[in-house]
Amino acid sequence: MSSYVAPLDDMRFALDLAGLLDIAALPPFAEATPDLIDAVLEEAGKFGAGVLAPINEIGDRQGCTLDPSGTVHLPEGAVEAYQQFIEAGWNSLPFDPEYGGQGLPGVVGVAVQEIWQAANMAWALCPLLTTGTIEALSAHGTEEQKALFLPKLVSGEWTGTMNLTESQAGSDLAQLRCKAEPAPDLGEGVFRITGQKIFITHGDHEAAENICHLVLARLPDAPPGVKGISLFLVPKFLVNPDGSLGAHNDVKAVSLEHKLGIHGSPTCVMAFGDEGGAIGTLVGEPHRGLACMFTMMNNARLNIGLQGIGIADRAYQHAVAFAKERVQGVDVTDPATGKTTIVHHPDVRRMLMHMRAKTEAGRALTYYAVAQMDLSKAHPDEAARAAANVRVDLLTPVVKAWSTEVGFEVSDLGVQVHGGTGYIEETGAAQHMRDARICRIYEGTNGIQAMDLVGRKVLRDKGAGVRVLLAEMRETEAALKAAPADVAVMAGSFARAVDDLENTTTWILEHASPAAAQGASTPYTFLFGLAAGGWLMMKAALEARRRLDAGEGNPATWKAKIGTAHYYADAVLPFTAAHRAAAEAGPDSLMVLEEDWF
Amino acid sequence: MSSYVAPLDDMRFALDLAGLLDIAALPPFAEATPDLIDAVLEEAGKFGAGVLAPINEIGDRQGCTLDPSGTVHLPEGAVEAYQQFIEAGWNSLPFDPEYGGQGLPGVVGVAVQEIWQAANMAWALCPLLTTGTIEALSAHGTEEQKALFLPKLVSGEWTGTMNLTESQAGSDLAQLRCKAEPAPDLGEGVFRITGQKIFITHGDHEAAENICHLVLARLPDAPPGVKGISLFLVPKFLVNPDGSLGAHNDVKAVSLEHKLGIHGSPTCVMAFGDEGGAIGTLVGEPHRGLACMFTMMNNARLNIGLQGIGIADRAYQHAVAFAKERVQGVDVTDPATGKTTIVHHPDVRRMLMHMRAKTEAGRALTYYAVAQMDLSKAHPDEAARAAANVRVDLLTPVVKAWSTEVGFEVSDLGVQVHGGTGYIEETGAAQHMRDARICRIYEGTNGIQAMDLVGRKVLRDKGAGVRVLLAEMRETEAALKAAPADVAVMAGSFARAVDDLENTTTWILEHASPAAAQGASTPYTFLFGLAAGGWLMMKAALEARRRLDAGEGNPATWKAKIGTAHYYADAVLPFTAAHRAAAEAGPDSLMVLEEDWF
Repeated sequence: MSSYVAPLDDMRFALDLAGLLDIAALPPFAEATPDLIDAVLEEAGKFGAGVLAPINEIGDRQGCTLDPSGTVHLPEGAVEAYQQFIEAGWNSLPFDPEYGGQGLPGVVGVAVQEIWQAANMAWALCPLLTTGTIEALSAHGTEEQKALFLPKLVSGEWTGTMNLTESQAGSDLAQLRCKAEPAPDLGEGVFRITGQKIFITHGDHEAAENICHLVLARLPDAPPGVKGISLFLVPKFLVNPDGSLGAHNDVKAVSLEHKLGIHGSPTCVMAFGDEGGAIGTLVGEPHRGLACMFTMMNNARLNIGLQGIGIADRAYQHAVAFAKERVQGVDVTDPATGKTTIVHHPDVRRMLMHMRAKTEAGRALTYYAVAQMDLSKAHPDEAARAAANVRVDLLTPVVKAWSTEVGFEVSDLGVQVHGGTGYIEETGAAQHMRDARICRIYEGTNGIQAMDLVGRKVLRDKGAGVRVLLAEMRETEAALKAAPADVAVMAGSFARAVDDLENTTTWILEHASPAAAQGASTPYTFLFGLAAGGWLMMKAALEARRRLDAGEGNPATWKAKIGTAHYYADAVLPFTAAHRAAAEAGPDSLMVLEEDWF
Repeated sequence: MSSYVAPLDDMRFALDLAGLLDIAALPPFAEATPDLIDAVLEEAGKFGAGVLAPINEIGDRQGCTLDPSGTVHLPEGAVEAYQQFIEAGWNSLPFDPEYGGQGLPGVVGVAVQEIWQAANMAWALCPLLTTGTIEALSAHGTEEQKALFLPKLVSGEWTGTMNLTESQAGSDLAQLRCKAEPAPDLGEGVFRITGQKIFITHGDHEAAENICHLVLARLPDAPPGVKGISLFLVPKFLVNPDGSLGAHNDVKAVSLEHKLGIHGSPTCVMAFGDEGGAIGTLVGEPHRGLACMFTMMNNARLNIGLQGIGIADRAYQHAVAFAKERVQGVDVTDPATGKTTIVHHPDVRRMLMHMRAKTEAGRALTYYAVAQMDLSKAHPDEAARAAANVRVDLLTPVVKAWSTEVGFEVSDLGVQVHGGTGYIEETGAAQHMRDARICRIYEGTNGIQAMDLVGRKVLRDKGAGVRVLLAEMRETEAALKAAPADVAVMAGSFARAVDDLENTTTWILEHASPAAAQGASTPYTFLFGLAAGGWLMMKAALEARRRLDAGEGNPATWKAKIGTAHYYADAVLPFTAAHRAAAEAGPDSLMVLEEDWF
């Protein structure tokens, strides 16, 4: 089994890199003093390690069960942990004080989220989805919906879900068939929803007294395709005007999926309206449901990227502990010392350094993107808000796709570090890998992210947003060259990676046939993630060097940061060129086979 | 669930590329006529698809169980399938006619093995290990051992196991503690074996009437370390001189591992001598057990590489079937046609082409290595035998490590092609990935293979063996340049890959500090696999072009081969440069962190 300790020093460093000091200085975050933030992280670390991590393996082993009545039972300890979680106020951390939130910056919330996801990803999906529900309702709900639902969702007494997928409508939501009929007998703006949704995470459970389902469905007069989809709020228990709970709505879980991982998270098939229609209210404008859902999804996508990083960090900790303990073979650099722990073997080092470097890069990038989201909302200057908004839009698909690839790659290496033991379930390394695997699929597969990046974030503004980022990367490149030798040594590798990003961006802009753009999208996204993660690793090395020179903190910490960035420059960044070549090869070899040749 | 059809055309093409015609013409293989080989492959395809594939998912779902008596029960259908397997004579295919084998070339045996492994990898591990036992006994057994055991092992009535690992001795067999005491009371050359072995595949089961355990243990006078290990043959049931079975030996399975995959294959903890000592006989010389075991392991390693390819092919078939059936989105190259199957989407194509290209390259390389093994044994010319032997030695770790990485990568992409459905166990895509994961670990982890490649196969002969291969690759490069445009287009990419292999080989020879060599070993192995697989893909393209020009067979088949090689050149070969950079970065950034900085 795998224990977990929140990597608070690494998290604080990533927060600093993301610009926490500047963000905390903005008026809306006046209460987010450094002391408070430190205290929050400390306590979150204790809660994650002490309450959530110990039930992670139990959740995997026991999974969830479904009563014929439609009630889902979570694994042992999950409900109790959730009660402790909301009683301690963890759920409300990043939300609007108007509805009972604590108003901390999102970037602090994301660090805390990392702890929940690393400690127990399956369990932590529940509050993650509540967060999305809160964001969608905050942005698009009526005043009545907000007043009635947000306080309970913010406190965590009620939880939320996203109901998008139907069996014929996965990545292609245009094929959605769920229906919503006006129910004037029940009041203005009330609808009866019918249809079936699949893959609904925490679609039912007993941890909260109510569950607020956000459901995509079609109104009777809806045009076909994605422009005829509306969003509805369908609570498990109807909510009376005074906030008290009424009857059970006509919605229930009818089956649970048997999945590769996240066994502790119930993935439900939800039936709406089997007995006449689930009662719901419209969220946002009719036929504009997809836009409303995207408000929620963009945030959720950053949080899924974060899951990748959380799992990566946990797998890394697990592998390091094993490598420091397992005695096998002799140290090649000093054979006379006899048997040694495997952490001394260069090939094991390679795996640990790879795990560490990618995890740090992914964390830096994810925190940075969320920090830009804070700026986009709270910066006093409109141009600064707009610039931050462009950056968030650009990086969201990169964070989601690349950080989840990192999460899987790192947890897979974690299995490998364990050797034969890694293949045995009781070890726990395999669970990390199984859990991490879903992150590349849900909230829009990584292929969908890649198409979003190329289509909406690069082609649409003709590369303007990327160019601003590239210019900042070039500044970092110049700073590297001017730095002391141990940091300057990384400049060549980083410059080549930035060249690759720049060149492939140009290639995509110049070869914008749909097949070329889509064919290049995944290699481009991987290249983008490697380069953007590398950019922040280089900034990390520069900052670590500065702290070393200034005599701040523990020199070993900063030397380790520089060493890890050096590994990243040596052994990770060279892969940008390979992805560039794959992207720029174009559709000739990609599309040459006819369908029946497969 | 996933069905399976043996890809006979692709297998025949890979056999042709590996030089089957030349091998079948050698005297020992006089009976291996093209008609016979075709018939064997056809029938094996039917057996795999009709008998083994249907119980693959059942095996995964049910797993194995252990009686308190030590008897292991296989999942439903496994014992019956094994009986049909040996009754049809499949087990004896590649073995020496002297002991009842059919004497077919190894390279034909390997194609047939691919079918078993693809159809049902967990089940097929049992005959795979019997093969290793037969090879070890053939090479090192006494005449008495051979006469008593080989006929039953060749027919498959008895099966074999490899007992190496102990909990403290995994990759480091020097730490082995199992003991063998002479038992003169029982006869000359008889020993009592005591100790516990772990991770013993098919250590017990009821499919065969006897199980022949090959066990590494130490004699009383053994020197410490790997030079004090001897090999013993310990049957589950003692064998009387007339070949009849005697008493149950003092060996039994005491527990079963709960694993990530291959649930249909019992992975046993085996206790030897709990009641005084398991009776065994020495195989080979005292203290030379590891060398004997390596005879077996080299073959087993090629077969594990083949498992990677078998699983890759099955995952590919599964993904293609889904992609041709699943309707989602519109065809970007022709949006007016409305909804389309996802096989038309460029990013899905990318995954399918990647799966296909790597599978074909891995198959070509694995068959080629086994064909070289046939030549090393059966070629009339001593120099030719020696050259083939060098090639087999060089390629064995590459095939094991790289083909199993391919197996995992391809089966992982197979999950991704399925989207959300891929994460649901009933789909079957996840099982392929879980099963494939073990191949990178067992029979020597891929890190161990990489050290074998660098230490024993490159440094030991100062790169001589690699240089001969490089010269052949350069000939292929020249042939590409002289070929028609659709093949010549690949020459540049291939030339760069060969440059990378050549340069990193030189780098390793010139930087042979142990830390540098070991640190570079895994990236070098991946680079080697990509380049060697690419070499055979280029030869495939040349041969396909020749067949097209000659009007042989179906033009679509050859065009697909050329297209797949083109994709490999465009999108796969560029990764050699990244691995080269990682290898040649050297140990500075790899080893810079002190142990307590992790």
